[in-house]
Amino acid sequence: VDCSTGLSGRCDESHRQDSVNLLTFILLLTLTILTIWLFKHRRVRFLHETGLAMIYGLLVGVILRYGIPSTIYHNKTPPSCSLKEGPVSTLLLNVSGKFFEYTLKGEINSREIHNVEQNDMLRKVTFDPEVFFNILLPPIIFHAGYSLKKRHFFRNLGSIITYAFLGTAISCFVIGNLMYGVVKLMQAVGQLTDKFYYTDCLFFGAIASATDPVTVLAIFNELHADVDLYALLFGESVLNDAVAIVLSSSIVAYQPSGTNTHTFDASAFFKSVGVFLGIFSGSFAMGAVTGVVTALISFFTKLHCFPLLETALFFLMSWSTFLLAEACSFTGVVAVLFCGITQAHYTYNNLSEESTKRTKQLFEVLHFLAENFIFSYMGLALFTFQNHIFSPIFIVGAFLAIFIGRASNIYPLSFFLNLGRRHKISGNFQHMMMFAGLRGAMAFALAIRDTATYARQMMFTTTLLIVFFTVWVFGGGTTPMLSWLHIREIWCKVVVFRVSFTLKGDNLLSHVSLQDGPQHEGGSKTKQESAWLFRLWYTFDHNYLKPILTHSGPPLTTTLPGCCGPLARCLTSPQAYENHEQLRDTDSDLILNDGDLTLTYGDTAITANGASGGHDGTRGEWGGINGKTEAAPERDSEAREHETTSRGTRLVFPVEDHA
Amino acid sequence: VDCSTGLSGRCDESHRQDSVNLLTFILLLTLTILTIWLFKHRRVRFLHETGLAMIYGLLVGVILRYGIPSTIYHNKTPPSCSLKEGPVSTLLLNVSGKFFEYTLKGEINSREIHNVEQNDMLRKVTFDPEVFFNILLPPIIFHAGYSLKKRHFFRNLGSIITYAFLGTAISCFVIGNLMYGVVKLMQAVGQLTDKFYYTDCLFFGAIASATDPVTVLAIFNELHADVDLYALLFGESVLNDAVAIVLSSSIVAYQPSGTNTHTFDASAFFKSVGVFLGIFSGSFAMGAVTGVVTALISFFTKLHCFPLLETALFFLMSWSTFLLAEACSFTGVVAVLFCGITQAHYTYNNLSEESTKRTKQLFEVLHFLAENFIFSYMGLALFTFQNHIFSPIFIVGAFLAIFIGRASNIYPLSFFLNLGRRHKISGNFQHMMMFAGLRGAMAFALAIRDTATYARQMMFTTTLLIVFFTVWVFGGGTTPMLSWLHIREIWCKVVVFRVSFTLKGDNLLSHVSLQDGPQHEGGSKTKQESAWLFRLWYTFDHNYLKPILTHSGPPLTTTLPGCCGPLARCLTSPQAYENHEQLRDTDSDLILNDGDLTLTYGDTAITANGASGGHDGTRGEWGGINGKTEAAPERDSEAREHETTSRGTRLVFPVEDHA
Repeated sequence: VDCSTGLSGRCDESHRQDSVNLLTFILLLTLTILTIWLFKHRRVRFLHETGLAMIYGLLVGVILRYGIPSTIYHNKTPPSCSLKEGPVSTLLLNVSGKFFEYTLKGEINSREIHNVEQNDMLRKVTFDPEVFFNILLPPIIFHAGYSLKKRHFFRNLGSIITYAFLGTAISCFVIGNLMYGVVKLMQAVGQLTDKFYYTDCLFFGAIASATDPVTVLAIFNELHADVDLYALLFGESVLNDAVAIVLSSSIVAYQPSGTNTHTFDASAFFKSVGVFLGIFSGSFAMGAVTGVVTALISFFTKLHCFPLLETALFFLMSWSTFLLAEACSFTGVVAVLFCGITQAHYTYNNLSEESTKRTKQLFEVLHFLAENFIFSYMGLALFTFQNHIFSPIFIVGAFLAIFIGRASNIYPLSFFLNLGRRHKISGNFQHMMMFAGLRGAMAFALAIRDTATYARQMMFTTTLLIVFFTVWVFGGGTTPMLSWLHIREIWCKVVVFRVSFTLKGDNLLSHVSLQDGPQHEGGSKTKQESAWLFRLWYTFDHNYLKPILTHSGPPLTTTLPGCCGPLARCLTSPQAYENHEQLRDTDSDLILNDGDLTLTYGDTAITANGASGGHDGTRGEWGGINGKTEAAPERDSEAREHETTSRGTRLVFPVEDHA
Repeated sequence: VDCSTGLSGRCDESHRQDSVNLLTFILLLTLTILTIWLFKHRRVRFLHETGLAMIYGLLVGVILRYGIPSTIYHNKTPPSCSLKEGPVSTLLLNVSGKFFEYTLKGEINSREIHNVEQNDMLRKVTFDPEVFFNILLPPIIFHAGYSLKKRHFFRNLGSIITYAFLGTAISCFVIGNLMYGVVKLMQAVGQLTDKFYYTDCLFFGAIASATDPVTVLAIFNELHADVDLYALLFGESVLNDAVAIVLSSSIVAYQPSGTNTHTFDASAFFKSVGVFLGIFSGSFAMGAVTGVVTALISFFTKLHCFPLLETALFFLMSWSTFLLAEACSFTGVVAVLFCGITQAHYTYNNLSEESTKRTKQLFEVLHFLAENFIFSYMGLALFTFQNHIFSPIFIVGAFLAIFIGRASNIYPLSFFLNLGRRHKISGNFQHMMMFAGLRGAMAFALAIRDTATYARQMMFTTTLLIVFFTVWVFGGGTTPMLSWLHIREIWCKVVVFRVSFTLKGDNLLSHVSLQDGPQHEGGSKTKQESAWLFRLWYTFDHNYLKPILTHSGPPLTTTLPGCCGPLARCLTSPQAYENHEQLRDTDSDLILNDGDLTLTYGDTAITANGASGGHDGTRGEWGGINGKTEAAPERDSEAREHETTSRGTRLVFPVEDHA
């Protein structure tokens, strides 16, 4: 309600109501925070904070629905007027010569007309679904991208991309077709009279394929479980959110509408694939470009003297990615994800130390609040959403379909990936990935975005139940499942990174190379290709992109061919010469976040006790190589033999082997 | 537009338009940030960042207004329908059997009907005025309160409250009456035909009395100008924002409307005063209570082990203050201000070190973004707001009125205050306070809140011009004005704080007392009274509130009378015993923010050169007493004589004297 118009009584009332609603949610979040603290304090692990937020949401939903006597509703149908034209966005109302402006809120079902005002209280606590997409999801997704700077993620990139793209597509297709069968069954037994198209089923497949193993990952982090499995799960869930969004919107484009009743055929399928690729690559490009622009701005200005300005700029540029993508009809959330990854990879290196902390903390808080808000809202929505359609057959079918869909993503793909992977994804890991297929914020946001038709309302209700079930049951069962699959009882195998140090003046120069365990020397062609592709990208990134975009990396003068000398000198920052060949330029590979570091410590302890650890007997001290790379350097006389420079040092990263 | 209804084409279009608009503002802010950096880098001081934001806003406004060809507007009057009843909040539209829901946006002027759609582009970049009050102002005001933890503020509290309450009321009344004269003049010469009530004039007085010397304060901070003057200006501007809001809303309550045409008489005046006191004290209480509740929560939980949870809770509780006050029909902004002050005074002491940084930085970023957004928007609004009414007589009258209003606030009150003050407010300080009466975000937000009538539109236009003029001219003129008034060339006088240290075990115990310079020993009764009041509050706060609400302060067992022993033991935290008599419990008085510390350093340098510094010859090293109180301890053999405990140390706080 626009309150600049003197209708202040009504306006005040509506404003007060809005305040009360928001206050309800803040109270919910406060309660959740306090209980989370209690759980963390007591080390309770059977219920994660998101599950908790849902429970509190449910409670408040029940109170709002049944606790408030219905007598306070003034049962009145609002006045209506007729027009011959279709719905217009702006309508004028002439009340005895005075004109009032009305804006279109939406179509309402004929059965709802009589309780438009009656259910006002419940409607009030229902947010515009676009709030989820435009305000709450972006910080969550950006934070996921921004905290993705993990060595293990990049090492498993091939598998992650396979699961996220191919796997999600398979899962979507499988769930869609199974649900189409369920729908046919329902129509056969007379349980479904409204329209339910094949595209609706595929749309449901896309929604239900977006996994969000936030609970599982939190527990992984606490228990110091396997790092590669963590990377696989985290990477897959981040990317498959993006894939699910784009998939669902390219399916919706072929939804039969009033005039367009042809079914989803082969040509529509290929068109959908085209739309998918267009939107995905467009959003990807947009995110990467804004990230690069931010890196360039922070590179060419001395903004790092003013952390406040730097943080504000970083925040604004990241937000503008979202808006830019939305304005160009791409997908903002996907753009924000890749913007986050780019910012972490390039801009992060240019920020002052103060700003790196500030930006991380800022997005951490935003992410935390947004996520818990969404989960609280989900709990609330089960009771306050007006158009729930509980269809037992559909719900049971959906539960079966999502398990089959997840299974046909994980098991076949793992089999094919294992043909090419050096470190096989063991059977237990596959079961764990299957188990970790929780559905969360993204599935909910996609489902609530459009609840206009009967089919969509049924899907929304079912999605909500799937989220509740998976978060509580699978989320709560993570700890026992990990023990049962023996994922915590790990044997260590050592992958050796060779780091050679050279003392040159006062600078400790270093060279890092990856050396495989001898048992993996003879790899198949696939292995070598993917390694070759990765190495090509790494070299290009390290030699050209990093020096151009950040203050780290070797100076361009040494990496560009001689003919580009003047250009190189002009683009190289003075700091690059200082950094030249220092360990700093390897931080993209070696930097370990707190989580990682803990994991490494955890593993080491086990190795030291377990004694089955690979070819590495003598263990030195753990310590930072420099301020930035907190890895575990270790001098080893064996390693020195293979090295080209003097003063060899081996970095030992224990990797688990379950074969 | 609710997009869950299948009207997706229109919805997409509107969403894209929204994204473009927000993108415009983000671009503006990005440009502003980069230019601010350039200015800071080059030490340009004639234009502050807020002035800059306004200039960029103006430029974009010109482009939007004149740069986009008007041919793209589709000139169409929206369809209208008639009803006999008054405006309803929800209207149904029946289009051939389908029902659409419309919500009331507001009344529109009959002259606007034909360009409702035409000016859609310009309307789109116009935000709902409530956005300013509910989203942008709260972080600005909270940050002001939260960063108010300054010794100098509390030392000048009496004067600040006088200027803020009495001064703002005087200013409001003077401006209101002068403007009523101007309005009468305009009516006499036939320049004003629409209604313009006396309450409208008083309302304008309230709007134009809210000062916002953000520019001046930034420059003060950079130039290390006088600390007492800084405290006076800062404190006055923070509190008078609150006063202006409450004043304006209590005046509006007596605005003659259609049925109520009686003028603003004496009874209405006293009722207004009553409403003012009610709203103000209610908001104050609400803010203080939420602050105290937050302090209690952080006191009784061990939340400080999880800085993320702590920060999130802090943020949510502070936000809930705003909503709670709005829900109870108090003023959210005022509540947030006092919540900020309470949080800084109590909760801040319970937070982990990590969280103290996080919360400060979080609110700093929010404050920065919100403030620059408002100033950009002001620039934009000059060209994109649809209903500007430029009335030369009113504008000239308003400029004269605000200067007279400010003068009748500062000079008479300073005269009376000087009768009671130990450290007189010198003539030059008074001129500077007069000069620093910029109008900013609060005046704008109050003016844009209601632009329904002709009078309000004229006021809005005038307020906008006043903000532009004062920010650019007065803001830019601060540096020359400071030099001209010789405020930077200061003589120092030393106030001696006696801190006595006792070594007890390993703990360095201390006792702080304030000792006045001998020349001030014989003060007037007023002085003693205010000192007595302040001391009473300080003792109560220090002995009872701080120990109950925070982990600092002496244990209650020592401050409460013996009979309350069990209660005291139960309420005292174990830490309090450890802290007992340590310097930590003095941090509310002694803690110096970065700004203060710089100021102190600045002053010292001057004292050392100026040589007129008081009775303190030998100067020791400056250094932190402990991690928290970065004040200047100094061992002095003279001081030891007056002390009860051994190992005396004097804290020297140079204070300027212009008498």
